[in-house]
Amino acid sequence: MSPHPELRPVGRVESALIDPATAPRQGDEGAPEAWLVFDAAVADALRDLAVGDQVVVLTWLDRARRDVLVTQPRNDVTAPELGVFSTRSPDRPNPIGLHTVRIVATDGTRVRVDGLEAVDGTPVLDVKPVLGPIAER
Amino acid sequence: MSPHPELRPVGRVESALIDPATAPRQGDEGAPEAWLVFDAAVADALRDLAVGDQVVVLTWLDRARRDVLVTQPRNDVTAPELGVFSTRSPDRPNPIGLHTVRIVATDGTRVRVDGLEAVDGTPVLDVKPVLGPIAER
Repeated sequence: MSPHPELRPVGRVESALIDPATAPRQGDEGAPEAWLVFDAAVADALRDLAVGDQVVVLTWLDRARRDVLVTQPRNDVTAPELGVFSTRSPDRPNPIGLHTVRIVATDGTRVRVDGLEAVDGTPVLDVKPVLGPIAER
Repeated sequence: MSPHPELRPVGRVESALIDPATAPRQGDEGAPEAWLVFDAAVADALRDLAVGDQVVVLTWLDRARRDVLVTQPRNDVTAPELGVFSTRSPDRPNPIGLHTVRIVATDGTRVRVDGLEAVDGTPVLDVKPVLGPIAER
């Protein structure tokens, strides 16, 4: 393995959210619906995604800083600083976003999801189903 | 942004699991405890991780194939093939592992977690706290 694995984005977020500074911090804090626009090359990977599915979307938070190791959680200047592995701050060594969302529409290689706090243009890395109980896997 | 963002692993898994073919498929299916051995350079990022914390560990599944778009879930040859975005197969365009675990011990830059199905040597990318209800964030 290369010591520095390379990510290959499989699509982009298409959203009304433009400014990271004013975007909701989490999807369940008022984030809007958004489209995941996938590259045609991965059409087979998404062919079984269906309306109603609950999935985890992984994104690359390309506006984030990678040199931050401690931060004030939720930008609260009165809070004590925490190591970033104890926060959900986008600023961290590998700024991968995790977004648990539900699929509300599909249109070819476009998939619409609810409550996504990632801004317009954010690269999409992966989609995984939310795991149910062991017996249903 | 570069079209191909580069990951920088922040540590490695140290585990008795050696062979991906016989490793449990998910952490709650009999996976053992394992150490996350972090690079000294990120010590500040993990300084607030504590025994009892429930966290999501992100790994780079470096034994996985990146050219697989459809697969038979759970290697069941009688099951219909599914697009990989509808499965948890490690074989996918960006093979990032998500592991929800609990911290059972810490020792400097070594963090021991329960139920981790990643094999020995797997690169660690990130650790995030499991999010509780909105009011507790």
